[in-house]
Amino acid sequence: MNYITGYYTTKFGELWDKSLFDLVEEAINGVLKSTNLERKKIDAVFFGNMLAGVLGNNLHSTSKLSEILDVNIPVFRTEAACASGGTAFNLAKTYLDANSNKNVLVIGAEKMTDYSPEEVITALSAAASGEEQEAGLTFSGLYAMMANFYLEKYHYTEKNLAYVSVKNHYHGTLNDKAHFRRKISIDDVLESAYVSYPLKVLDSSPISDGASAIIMSNNLNFIKKQDYSASVLASEIATDTISLKSRKNIDEILATKIVSDKAFKMAKIKRSDINVAELHDCFSIAEILAMEDLGFWKKGEGGQKIMEESTTYGNGGNLIVNTSGGLKASGHPVGATGIKQIGEIFLQLTGQANNRQVKNAKYGLAHNVGGSGGTAVVTILSS
Amino acid sequence: MNYITGYYTTKFGELWDKSLFDLVEEAINGVLKSTNLERKKIDAVFFGNMLAGVLGNNLHSTSKLSEILDVNIPVFRTEAACASGGTAFNLAKTYLDANSNKNVLVIGAEKMTDYSPEEVITALSAAASGEEQEAGLTFSGLYAMMANFYLEKYHYTEKNLAYVSVKNHYHGTLNDKAHFRRKISIDDVLESAYVSYPLKVLDSSPISDGASAIIMSNNLNFIKKQDYSASVLASEIATDTISLKSRKNIDEILATKIVSDKAFKMAKIKRSDINVAELHDCFSIAEILAMEDLGFWKKGEGGQKIMEESTTYGNGGNLIVNTSGGLKASGHPVGATGIKQIGEIFLQLTGQANNRQVKNAKYGLAHNVGGSGGTAVVTILSS
Repeated sequence: MNYITGYYTTKFGELWDKSLFDLVEEAINGVLKSTNLERKKIDAVFFGNMLAGVLGNNLHSTSKLSEILDVNIPVFRTEAACASGGTAFNLAKTYLDANSNKNVLVIGAEKMTDYSPEEVITALSAAASGEEQEAGLTFSGLYAMMANFYLEKYHYTEKNLAYVSVKNHYHGTLNDKAHFRRKISIDDVLESAYVSYPLKVLDSSPISDGASAIIMSNNLNFIKKQDYSASVLASEIATDTISLKSRKNIDEILATKIVSDKAFKMAKIKRSDINVAELHDCFSIAEILAMEDLGFWKKGEGGQKIMEESTTYGNGGNLIVNTSGGLKASGHPVGATGIKQIGEIFLQLTGQANNRQVKNAKYGLAHNVGGSGGTAVVTILSS
Repeated sequence: MNYITGYYTTKFGELWDKSLFDLVEEAINGVLKSTNLERKKIDAVFFGNMLAGVLGNNLHSTSKLSEILDVNIPVFRTEAACASGGTAFNLAKTYLDANSNKNVLVIGAEKMTDYSPEEVITALSAAASGEEQEAGLTFSGLYAMMANFYLEKYHYTEKNLAYVSVKNHYHGTLNDKAHFRRKISIDDVLESAYVSYPLKVLDSSPISDGASAIIMSNNLNFIKKQDYSASVLASEIATDTISLKSRKNIDEILATKIVSDKAFKMAKIKRSDINVAELHDCFSIAEILAMEDLGFWKKGEGGQKIMEESTTYGNGGNLIVNTSGGLKASGHPVGATGIKQIGEIFLQLTGQANNRQVKNAKYGLAHNVGGSGGTAVVTILSS
């Protein structure tokens, strides 16, 4: 069995005074300190990053990380658009499954705010198909198509979507690492400017900087000495077509449905066992689709369910969603997101989530999506 | 034990009429046909690519490959500059070590000639440190510094280096997939234009397009039915500083020395057991350093040894190097290179190397390097 024993994240936000590798160093130092792990005791490093090449002409980060860590061990960089972090974690788990008594460092990071919004939007569209890029479809455009289809098919309005953002902004006020820490109202969302109809600014996750790191181990001697640990019950990946037009249904993310079934089968627990979940709410519609595709809610009922506010912290629900603030309020430094999601679940399951601590949380799930659903990663942890 | 059962490579060269994913599709179809493997029987895909993001704004190839293959399985893209292919193979092997009875597809590909030389050179410099990029150091510049240091320290001249290119161009004439298929002479090399003194055009690998694919398996029922198989004795990775200025010695690639020791220890064979090797000759000096750092020759004697031409095909040597033509003549479509190297060894060990077949080849080694030595991968196969 593999255990997460430590997690550290930088603050997410517009961190003008820090470079990508400043953030990476802060995350590495933070997580090593939290676990009392010496650099020389790390056996391999897995790094999730999407945009450093396109935006900063920075590739070969395997070597850069070797330089920062002052080690000569295997370092891997993986990229799967916005699922880069979750994918790095999955590869790290496979490494542990193949090798006994090892400690791995998993890092996700992104530096986005040093570039113009136009540059970032073009770079992010690299996760869509060539056709979609040529048609001028941005990510908000792709998710807007899904949102329009969903709202019309199930007779909902933009107000239903707004509940996602209101909840996640409230959770952001409870997380001192979150990009946005202010409450917003349903009216705030509905009155915000359209990005791609029906999605508005306040339906959308921001452009953020940040880095998050995890230590995972199957070295029992090391794990025993740790103050905190959570076991990794499952880490699964599924993929799907990159072009939306090749999908049968656009009121669902098929890759999420497939990977969810695989992960629950592997973890040998039921959907109803999950107490906390971090879902990939790049846009408000995405959290509703995720709740349905993961099997927490039935297809089509998400628009209604979200208005009941049972997934909001403090309302006594059985499943609290996106206590970190989600991508919407915690921020979305692309490569870091998948690691932060798993880290937030680790904090919840080990009683370290402070003023957003969900009581008696035993099982948690993290759900990380690439692009408009071409890659989906689900991780299930147990306290 | 893991076995390679199939290999296919497209022609390497200036393939103006084909896109990156046209090449990927050709490689996939070719390798699946050679092994009679159905798409639905692939359990995971590992894709090595360096530049599609920077040059073509194409990321999220995990999803693109899912679309091409019409499957929903895990797909991973990894990047480690020019070692992207070798790294993808290493991750694939780890996946098999962690999971029994699986078949994996490993692909490397790059599309470089659709862009201007300036764009490609800038993109390739993404594998160097930020400082080196700002100083205007290109890859030929970095290897030229190593070459100058080596030639001065051990009292050699540019002529010593030229023997590498002459050998590899000769081997290229024997490989119908090679980018360059013409013999060159020592004088041709010495009279070619300087790129970065003392390295000339004919000391340098070209900018190429191409895709290569391998099927690796630990499913014994599948392996038994195959016409050809080679066992994977070792696949190891080491890293080092990205900046040349942080290295103690620049007449060696430390990552190659470290990974070589690890790989031979894992494979439980001696250096002298290796009959064929594909080494990372991005520049002529690189093959000489590699021969020394891998332990085939002593440090400093490479400049002399290469003139003896014992590593040339047909001269009866115990170790023949770069029968594919190496990066120099076979071409260097970055992400494909590491896969092509392993594929060439597979062909040699299974008697499929046609008019460049080394007789009685039992053990082979592939050596793939990222940047100026920040990442090194060594793979050892046995017939």
